[in-house]
Amino acid sequence: MTSLSIDEQLAYLTKGFAEVIRVEDLRERLLLAQKENRPLRVKAGFDPTAPDLHLGHTVLIRKLKHFQDLGHTAIFLIGDMTGLIGDPTGRNLTRPPMTRDQIAANAETYRQQIFKLLDPEKTEIRFNSEWLEPLGFEQLVRLCSHYTVARLLERDDFTKRYREGSPISLHEFLYPISQGYDSVALRADVELGGTDQKFNLLVGRELQKDYGQPSQIVATTPLLEGLDGVQKMSKSLGNYVGIAEAPEEMFKKLMSISDHLMWRYYELLTDLTQEQTRALRQETEAGERHPMEVKTELARRVVADFHSAADAQRAAGEFTRVVRQGQAPSDLEAVPLPEGVSQDGQIRIDKLLAKLGIAPSVSEAVRRVKANAVEINGDKVTDLKYTPSSKELWLQVGRKWARIRL
Amino acid sequence: MTSLSIDEQLAYLTKGFAEVIRVEDLRERLLLAQKENRPLRVKAGFDPTAPDLHLGHTVLIRKLKHFQDLGHTAIFLIGDMTGLIGDPTGRNLTRPPMTRDQIAANAETYRQQIFKLLDPEKTEIRFNSEWLEPLGFEQLVRLCSHYTVARLLERDDFTKRYREGSPISLHEFLYPISQGYDSVALRADVELGGTDQKFNLLVGRELQKDYGQPSQIVATTPLLEGLDGVQKMSKSLGNYVGIAEAPEEMFKKLMSISDHLMWRYYELLTDLTQEQTRALRQETEAGERHPMEVKTELARRVVADFHSAADAQRAAGEFTRVVRQGQAPSDLEAVPLPEGVSQDGQIRIDKLLAKLGIAPSVSEAVRRVKANAVEINGDKVTDLKYTPSSKELWLQVGRKWARIRL
Repeated sequence: MTSLSIDEQLAYLTKGFAEVIRVEDLRERLLLAQKENRPLRVKAGFDPTAPDLHLGHTVLIRKLKHFQDLGHTAIFLIGDMTGLIGDPTGRNLTRPPMTRDQIAANAETYRQQIFKLLDPEKTEIRFNSEWLEPLGFEQLVRLCSHYTVARLLERDDFTKRYREGSPISLHEFLYPISQGYDSVALRADVELGGTDQKFNLLVGRELQKDYGQPSQIVATTPLLEGLDGVQKMSKSLGNYVGIAEAPEEMFKKLMSISDHLMWRYYELLTDLTQEQTRALRQETEAGERHPMEVKTELARRVVADFHSAADAQRAAGEFTRVVRQGQAPSDLEAVPLPEGVSQDGQIRIDKLLAKLGIAPSVSEAVRRVKANAVEINGDKVTDLKYTPSSKELWLQVGRKWARIRL
Repeated sequence: MTSLSIDEQLAYLTKGFAEVIRVEDLRERLLLAQKENRPLRVKAGFDPTAPDLHLGHTVLIRKLKHFQDLGHTAIFLIGDMTGLIGDPTGRNLTRPPMTRDQIAANAETYRQQIFKLLDPEKTEIRFNSEWLEPLGFEQLVRLCSHYTVARLLERDDFTKRYREGSPISLHEFLYPISQGYDSVALRADVELGGTDQKFNLLVGRELQKDYGQPSQIVATTPLLEGLDGVQKMSKSLGNYVGIAEAPEEMFKKLMSISDHLMWRYYELLTDLTQEQTRALRQETEAGERHPMEVKTELARRVVADFHSAADAQRAAGEFTRVVRQGQAPSDLEAVPLPEGVSQDGQIRIDKLLAKLGIAPSVSEAVRRVKANAVEINGDKVTDLKYTPSSKELWLQVGRKWARIRL
C-alpha cells in the first residue's frame, strides 16, 4: 500500500478518527518519514487489567493496524506502572495492586487478541514501568516542572471535581504527566486514543517539545455505538460483540443492526477506504445492492478478522440456512426421547413438545399442532399421535428446532 | 534544667514563638518522652545555600537550642535535594543546581556557625537526599496520594498565583509534600520554622498521621525586627548584625537599638526565661536599673554567644571607652607622618589634619584648632606649629582619632 499518494495515505489513516491534531502535521510527518526512509512510531496505551475485548475496543486497535498497513510501527503500550501501584488511596477496592505475573498474563491475553488484527512483525509491545520505575525524585521533579497546575486543572474531569469540591489527590496529576512522558521515552510520532484521552495525549505533545523532540500528532477515535445504535458498546449494557465470541454468534449479532448503523460499522470496523464505503453506500441507496447483502458482507468481514475467512463463510451459510431459510442448524445435538411421551410405539407430540420446552405447555402444543405449525422430518404433523418411521426425528415449531434420537 | 516542672518546661520552650500547634500536644509529648525516657526529636529545615547568618536566623536556631537545653535532640535538616535539582524550569538563573561538594562545603559553614549556639552532642545534621533520592516513582505516587490539589492550592502564595493566573509548575507542589515526608522519615516530634513555613509544617503533621506516626507539634518563630525596629532584619536592608562580625562591631550595633526593641531582642536573642525578662523589665521601668546598663547586658550576652565571654567583656570595655568616654580606641594603628607637613622640626597641624583626612580642608583645620577642638597626646593644641616631644602622637578631633609614629 506504500504506492499510495500522500493524499491517499492521509485519507486512509485519518478515516474514522473523531479528531486529528493536526492533519497537516501528519502529512508533513509522513513526508519526513518517507524522506528518511523510516517508519513512523505510532503509540496507543492500554490498561494492564485483564482484557476481554469487544468490537468497541477494536476501533483503536484497527487504527494502529491502518498505520501498519502503510508500513509504520505500532507501539502497543501497556500502562503497567499504574497497575503495579493500584489505587494508592485505597478508596477504590476494585483496584488493588497487580503482581508482575498477573500483568504478564494479561499482556499474553492481549497479545492473543490484538494479533488477530495487528501484525506481530510491526508491533512493539512495551510496558511503561521500563522507564517510569527507574525515574528518581530528581527526574520526576524536573518532569513535573514542565507542566503547570492551572493547565492540569483545565482537564474536564479535574475542573469539574475542583469546582464541586470533590477531592483530587495529587498523585492523579502525576498520571497525565507520566503518560506524556511515555511519548518522550518512546519517541512517538503519533499517539492514538479515545476522545476521553485527548487531554492526556496533548500533554505528550507539550512534553516532547520541552524535551527537544518534535511533538507527536494526536488522533482520537470515537466511541463505537453498540448493537442498539444508541448507546456506546459496552459489556454491561449487553449491546456488544466480544471478539472471542463464536463466529456464528458474532455473525448473528452483526446481522441484527440497523441499516443506518451498518455504515458506521463499515467505517470503524473494516479496512475499506472511505472511497470504497462511499461507493458501496451509493450503490445500496440507489437500489443496485440489497442492504441485507451488504450487511452480510460486513458481518463476513468482521468475523473473518477475528476468526478466519472459512469461519466467516460457514457462519454466513449457517445464518442463511437457519435464520433466513428456516433450516435446521447443522450442529444441532441429538437428544434421546424423553420419558413418558410414547405408548405402544406411538409418540404423543403434544407431550413431547412440552417436555422439550419447545411449547410452553401441553395445551399450547395442541394448539400449535392444530395450527399446522409443527413439522417432523419436514412433514407437517396433523395428528397428536405420531408413529416414527426413522431413527432420527427433526422437530420444528416455528424457528425452534429439536433433534431426537430414538 | 530537667528538674523543671512541666509548666516551667513549656514556658521555656514556647517562649518567643509566633504560634504553637498545639501547646497542649507539646505538653503531652513532653510527658510521653519523659515516661519513655527518650529525648524528643525536634526538626528545623534549612536551605543548602551558603549560609551567612545574622541574628534574624538565630531566632530559630536558638529555639532548637532551648529544646536541647532540656535534653532533647535537635535535627538540623539541610534540604539538599532541592539544591541538587536547582530550578528545573531554568527561569531563575540564580538557582543553578549545586554540586555535592558545594553542598558539603556549605554544610561545613553551617556547622561552624550553628555550633556557636547548638550542642554538637545533641544535634543531628541530616540531608534529605538521604531518603528522597531513593524514592522511586511508585513511592512518590503513593506519597502524593496522601494530599489533595485543593489543599495545596490553599497555601497563601499558591492561592494568590492561581487567582492571578501566574503559573505554578507542578513540581512546586512536590516540595511541600517532600518537606512533609522529611518529618515522616525523621520521625519528628516537633518541627520549627518561620511563620512563612506554617503551611509546609502542617503538611508534615498530616503525612505523619497517614504513615501511622503521631503528628508532629508545629511551632513557628516570628521574624526578627532589624536594628531600626521597623523592618525585618535583612542583609539587603543593612539593619542586621551578622553572627560572624567582630565583637566590637556587634556590640556597637546592639547598643544602637531603641529601649523598646531591647525587650524584643531579650525575648528572641537570649536564653532568659520569660519570667526573668519580665522582672528585668519591671526593674528598669521602675527606675531601679538604667536602660543603658540593661542594654549593655543584652549586647554582652549576644556577643558572648557568638564569640566568648572574654570577647564580650573586651567589647563592652571598648564601647565604654570610645563611645561613651571619648577615649582612643585601643587597636588604632600607627601611621608615619605624612610628607610635606614638617619644617625645621615643627609640624604644621592644619596641614597634618587635612592630609590625614581628619579635617576636610586646611582652612577647616585652622578653624578647629582655633575652636580648641584639637588635642595631641591629651593636650589642647593652641598653635598651628607644633613641636613634638615624643615618638608617638595621638591626635583627636572630636571623636576622630589618628596615631602617628615619628
